[in-house]
Amino acid sequence: MPVNLQAPDPASLHPVPGLSLGVAMAGIRKAQRRDLLVIALDVGASVAGVFTQNRFCAAPVQVCREHLGTASGVRALLVNTGNANAGTGADGLARARQSCSALAQMMGLQQEQILPFSTGVIMETLPVERLAAGLPAAIEALRADGWGEAALAIMTTDTLPKAASRQIEIDGQVVTITGIAKGAGMIRPNMATMLGFVATDANLAPELLQVLVRDAADLSFNRITIDGDTSTNDSFMLIATHKAGHQRINSLDSAAGQALRAAVIAVSQQLAQAIVRDGEGATKFITVTVAGGRNQAECKLAAYAIAHSPLVKTAFFASDPNLGRILAAVGYAGINDLDQTLIDLHLDEVHVVRAGGRHPDYLESEGQRVMQQSEITVTVDLHRGDARTTVWTCDLSHDYVSINADYRS
Amino acid sequence: MPVNLQAPDPASLHPVPGLSLGVAMAGIRKAQRRDLLVIALDVGASVAGVFTQNRFCAAPVQVCREHLGTASGVRALLVNTGNANAGTGADGLARARQSCSALAQMMGLQQEQILPFSTGVIMETLPVERLAAGLPAAIEALRADGWGEAALAIMTTDTLPKAASRQIEIDGQVVTITGIAKGAGMIRPNMATMLGFVATDANLAPELLQVLVRDAADLSFNRITIDGDTSTNDSFMLIATHKAGHQRINSLDSAAGQALRAAVIAVSQQLAQAIVRDGEGATKFITVTVAGGRNQAECKLAAYAIAHSPLVKTAFFASDPNLGRILAAVGYAGINDLDQTLIDLHLDEVHVVRAGGRHPDYLESEGQRVMQQSEITVTVDLHRGDARTTVWTCDLSHDYVSINADYRS
Repeated sequence: MPVNLQAPDPASLHPVPGLSLGVAMAGIRKAQRRDLLVIALDVGASVAGVFTQNRFCAAPVQVCREHLGTASGVRALLVNTGNANAGTGADGLARARQSCSALAQMMGLQQEQILPFSTGVIMETLPVERLAAGLPAAIEALRADGWGEAALAIMTTDTLPKAASRQIEIDGQVVTITGIAKGAGMIRPNMATMLGFVATDANLAPELLQVLVRDAADLSFNRITIDGDTSTNDSFMLIATHKAGHQRINSLDSAAGQALRAAVIAVSQQLAQAIVRDGEGATKFITVTVAGGRNQAECKLAAYAIAHSPLVKTAFFASDPNLGRILAAVGYAGINDLDQTLIDLHLDEVHVVRAGGRHPDYLESEGQRVMQQSEITVTVDLHRGDARTTVWTCDLSHDYVSINADYRS
Repeated sequence: MPVNLQAPDPASLHPVPGLSLGVAMAGIRKAQRRDLLVIALDVGASVAGVFTQNRFCAAPVQVCREHLGTASGVRALLVNTGNANAGTGADGLARARQSCSALAQMMGLQQEQILPFSTGVIMETLPVERLAAGLPAAIEALRADGWGEAALAIMTTDTLPKAASRQIEIDGQVVTITGIAKGAGMIRPNMATMLGFVATDANLAPELLQVLVRDAADLSFNRITIDGDTSTNDSFMLIATHKAGHQRINSLDSAAGQALRAAVIAVSQQLAQAIVRDGEGATKFITVTVAGGRNQAECKLAAYAIAHSPLVKTAFFASDPNLGRILAAVGYAGINDLDQTLIDLHLDEVHVVRAGGRHPDYLESEGQRVMQQSEITVTVDLHRGDARTTVWTCDLSHDYVSINADYRS
């Protein structure tokens, strides 16, 4: 059961001028399931992305990296679920290119103008023929208000579609930012989530897009974890159609640039948090903040050690304030000169640990009360500097095991 | 259910001359449970140990480190279960010292001649009074053939006691090596397991003992993982009573030194593997070998990435040959210049992946057959060097979640 997450109201997802979306059923893995998405962009749109750092990156990720540099400009994104086309060697690369080629032919484009994305089972052959056969229906279905359908089409083990949208004003002009993403396992993004697509009609200088997508990924998808497994297919794309009527944004430090940056980050964080809320088997949404570090890197080490620990995660599942497990995780996080006698731990507002030991006023009943909530904040203070960071995660439940033991069967 | 593991036959556990063991019920956490163990050493015994690298190391680990250097020589080890005395700050340190002091007084020793060990729940106050009250019974119970009882007394979530014993001949004299260990969660030793004690009557130069304990730990307890959580209390101790009648061993490279080293490593590996076989919720015993690395370090990175991946572990639980998850883990292991097109993967003798893609002759039914076994070997060849390493792990089952969600309740 997702944690405090609802399916988005399709009416709340503002279209982005210059972009349309179409879905179809191609029977990639299962019949009668929308498993194909085409996102078509008007001439002049810019696209930037960040991809998985997994060295076993999937074939479509490799093709995306090649095609992103194309001079003729990206005109369409092609997404399939049911098959990740990862661990498929040279044959997988050829199939990723064939799928781009098929769509390019139907849309009168060059192969390099298509970015391919796949998600699903690893190490199985991508059925290009079935994929290509589904493309005409997806092209036929292209419409500006297709975001809700698109969010549904990219789901795998997600129980709910994930989408977010907001509008801001720049120079008196409405600017839209709308995005979709999918989880829900193999989630410990190391540049991006499994798949995330955010688009805006903001008119910003194309060279700023890559900076913005890195910033947004770093403050959203790169701050979440479900099971610590970095996917082979992580891709997070930011699209700008430049259709809004305001003056071109040439700096992200300008007032307009800052407003746009904040809105893109907000949409990205909402999507990233939605992935955690719908994490496989999740029953709790946990915010882990580590403060008082010498630098961000060591705060992140400690925060992820807590967020990845199966013992911490099962304690949250059980609503059991077995909080020594959090201290143990901080201890093995890899901060070699850590002084345990400086450490403080709060669970929401409850002061659990002071100076590395149980706080004398801490009552187990207080810890118990917080642990029973569906949203919990863990705050660790290392008391050795001013850096801080936050990551979001979920608990580890029986359903996580069931979902991943049954996923292919 | 432990994987192909039986409780040791007490008669198979050879006494080590110069050492006796006594257990008692102290009611540390629960009544009517043997939770206290004293190991008494004759004058002249040597002790060396390796301890957790967790920076939140427990109070007894800190006291052990201090006492190991004592000139008067260690004469007793004091072990309690039910309470880890970790995350307990200055008060915990004082209580660890008080427990040593209590035993020292009863045995006519100095406090520094006692090494304390605790295992159990973290961040709770060690009930020193109850512990001290239980000591006379443990001292009363001291006997040379107490290994079987001792293995039972140090269990926490273990379902079976773990002990191993063998005898070798040196200079025509019988030399004994006997040991016990406990698991069964928070197991990703980074020097040692939760608790392991191996003793021998071999007469070896005391200065060699520290070398030998590091070697043995590195090839046994430092090669296992259950859940990736490094405990606050890991301690692995090697005791030599020097009682055997052979000539003193002054080099581990001598024939006698090599024979002793091999036997100590064999006992340590048997204990370490027993911990994995009895891992919390384990249904399968998995041997992960990574070969063809440039060095041991990168082989270990890849082997542990596989062994820690919740997705790999749930696939083993499900007997599902969803083997792309293994490739994904190798990909994110942190080997930055890894070339995925070189990689081979075998499951037992079945060749699953060649050159980074599915082997053309691989049949899913063959993978399925191996996955259904209770013992499985995963072999990854990186094809970039000659180094190789092996680690042992288990699967991730519903019972792991149940055990850790219920542990304190």
